Amino acid sequence: MTDYHARQMHLINRPAGLPTHADFALVETVLAPPTDGEVLVRNHFMSVDPYMRGRMRAIGVYAEPYALNKPMYGGAIGEVVESKAAGFAPGDIVLNQGAWQDKLVAKAASLTKLEPFDPDRLSLYLGTLGMPGFTAYVGLLRFGEPKPGETVFVSAASGAVGANVCQIAKLKGCRVVGSVGSDAKARWLLEECGVDAVINYKTCGDLTAALAAAAPDGIDMYFENVGGEHLQAALSVMNPFGRIAACGMIASYNNAEPAPGPNNLMLIVGKKIRINGFIVWDHSDLRPAFLADMTAWIQDGKIVSRETIVDGLENSVDAFLGLFTGDNFGKMVVKI
Amino acid sequence: MTDYHARQMHLINRPAGLPTHADFALVETVLAPPTDGEVLVRNHFMSVDPYMRGRMRAIGVYAEPYALNKPMYGGAIGEVVESKAAGFAPGDIVLNQGAWQDKLVAKAASLTKLEPFDPDRLSLYLGTLGMPGFTAYVGLLRFGEPKPGETVFVSAASGAVGANVCQIAKLKGCRVVGSVGSDAKARWLLEECGVDAVINYKTCGDLTAALAAAAPDGIDMYFENVGGEHLQAALSVMNPFGRIAACGMIASYNNAEPAPGPNNLMLIVGKKIRINGFIVWDHSDLRPAFLADMTAWIQDGKIVSRETIVDGLENSVDAFLGLFTGDNFGKMVVKI
Repeated sequence: MTDYHARQMHLINRPAGLPTHADFALVETVLAPPTDGEVLVRNHFMSVDPYMRGRMRAIGVYAEPYALNKPMYGGAIGEVVESKAAGFAPGDIVLNQGAWQDKLVAKAASLTKLEPFDPDRLSLYLGTLGMPGFTAYVGLLRFGEPKPGETVFVSAASGAVGANVCQIAKLKGCRVVGSVGSDAKARWLLEECGVDAVINYKTCGDLTAALAAAAPDGIDMYFENVGGEHLQAALSVMNPFGRIAACGMIASYNNAEPAPGPNNLMLIVGKKIRINGFIVWDHSDLRPAFLADMTAWIQDGKIVSRETIVDGLENSVDAFLGLFTGDNFGKMVVKI
Repeated sequence: MTDYHARQMHLINRPAGLPTHADFALVETVLAPPTDGEVLVRNHFMSVDPYMRGRMRAIGVYAEPYALNKPMYGGAIGEVVESKAAGFAPGDIVLNQGAWQDKLVAKAASLTKLEPFDPDRLSLYLGTLGMPGFTAYVGLLRFGEPKPGETVFVSAASGAVGANVCQIAKLKGCRVVGSVGSDAKARWLLEECGVDAVINYKTCGDLTAALAAAAPDGIDMYFENVGGEHLQAALSVMNPFGRIAACGMIASYNNAEPAPGPNNLMLIVGKKIRINGFIVWDHSDLRPAFLADMTAWIQDGKIVSRETIVDGLENSVDAFLGLFTGDNFGKMVVKI
C-alpha cells in the first residue's frame, strides 16, 4: 500500500526582517494519488538557498512569491515511488522542485531524471552539480570572463556558490581572493580549495584596505554575493575594465528598510566597469557544458565540495536561517 | 609680426566642494614660438564639460589630474596662426586640447584638422559633432542597444550629451523619457527634440513615482548622467534585462564627502540588469561612423542642437560652474 501521508513546511507570515519560526508551520497532509502524467516522489534531500528569502516577500523580484499557507518549494532530490508518467519508474532518482516537502505529487515535466555518478553523493546535485554550482559557472565564465593571470575577488567565498567560483577561477589560471566570515572557512579555502588569499570580513577592520592588501595588483573581476560594503570595497580596488557578476546581495535580504548603497558608484564610470546582474535560470544553454565540465572536475579531484547537512524537515527552518548567520559551511542541505 | 602673448586659466587650488573663483587664476604669458612639428593655434571656442571637475581632484579617476599653477586643458576649436608642422597651414581649423587658453603652441599630433560643413557653426564640433555627441552615440548604440518600441530614459536630458541621446534614441524608434531641471528645458525637449515625456526633477516630487508615471511600460534602457536618486528611480522602473550606460554621475562631482548610493541595487540581480561604465576615448573605432551619421542627421534636420555661448576666457570659470547649477541650456561653450 502506497503511503500518501506527507509533511510540508508552509509559510504562514511574510517576515519583515530576519524570519523567525513563527513565520512557518510544519503541516501534515494526505496527498491525492498521482493521475496521468504525474509522479509521486519521496524526497531524500532538499536545498535551502538565500534566494528563497526573496520568495517570502509579497512582491517577487527573483521569482514569484511563495503563497501563504501552502508548501514552499525549491530544489530537492528524491526517488520515484509511484509513476503515472511515461519515462519514470519507481526507484528513479529525480531532481524536483519539492523542497520543504518530504513527499509530493509532481508533473513529470517538472522533474529531471538524474544518473548520479555516485549514488552516495546525491546531495551534490543540489550543490556543486546543482543550481549553486551552475550559478558559479555561468556567472564566472559568461559574465566574469576571467583571463589567466587576472585577480578574481569572491564574496561569501566558502558558500555553495562562492566555493565553486573560487575553484573554477583557479582552474582558469586566475589569482583568487575570497572573503568569508570565519577563520575555519578561510583555512578551508586556503588549504583545500587552493585560494590564494582570504579575508575574514568580520575581523579584518577596514574591508577596502584589507582587499587592497590581499590584491596588490587590484582585482579584475568581482563575483558579487553580498553587496553593501563588499561592493564598495570591490569598486575601490577594481582595475580599469573590471567586470562584476552580480549573483546576489545577501547583506540586504533581511533588511526591513532598504539600506543605502556604496558611496563610490562613480567608479563604475571612471574605471569603465561592467556589471551584469544575472539569474541562472536564463542560461540553461550552458547546462550541458556545465554538467560535463563539473562532473569531470569532481571526479578528477579538481573541485572539492563541502556541505552542511541538517537532519529532518522539522529542522529546515533552522537550516535556512543559518544561511544568514553564516552557520553553514559550504552548501547547506536538509536530509529528509 | 606674430603675437605670442597668450592668456591661460590656471587651477591654483584643488576645490573641496563646488569650485569657486578663488580656485582659478587668469594668467598672461608669452609663448615660445613653435619649433619643428609644432603649431601656434588661436582658439575661437572652448568647451567646458562636467568631466573637468574630476581633473581638478588630486587623484584622477577619468583622467590625469590638472597640475596646479599650469593651464588647464580640454577640447577647443581654433585656427592655425603659424605652422612648423607638415600638413598644417595658417587658416586651418583645428580641434585641439587647448581649452582654457586663448592661444597655445601644440604638437601637430595633438590636433585634428576639421573640414567644417558650415564655417558659421564651428562650435558644433565641441558639442553635437564633438565629444558630447560622440559620447551619446557610443553610450546609446554600443552599450544601450536600443530596440524599436523600447523605452529609453535619459537624465540631464537637455544637456550636451543627453539631448543627443534623446534624439538618436528617437531616430532608432524608441519612446524617450527625459529628466531635466527646468520647465524651459522640458518644453524644448518636447517641442524641438521630439521627446515623448519629460520630468522636471526639481518639481516632480517623488522621482521614482514620476518616472513610473512617465514610463507606464517601464524603461528598457537608462542613459546615466546624474547618479543618486536618478539611478535609484531608473532601477526601480527598469524592465528585466534592462541596460544602463553609465556616462557620468554629476550629482556627486562636487561632494566634499562621498554620498551613499541607491538603496535598491539588489534590483540589478533580480532584473538581470547590465551596467556599462564607459569613457568615450576608448571607442574611437566608432568615430568615423559617428561623424558620418551625425553630420547627415544635422544636415537633414533630424538632430537639433542648442548651445549656451559665454563670451570671453575671463568668464570661463562662470561657464564651468554653471554646468553644476543647471545654468547651461544644451552645450555650454566659451567664445574666446
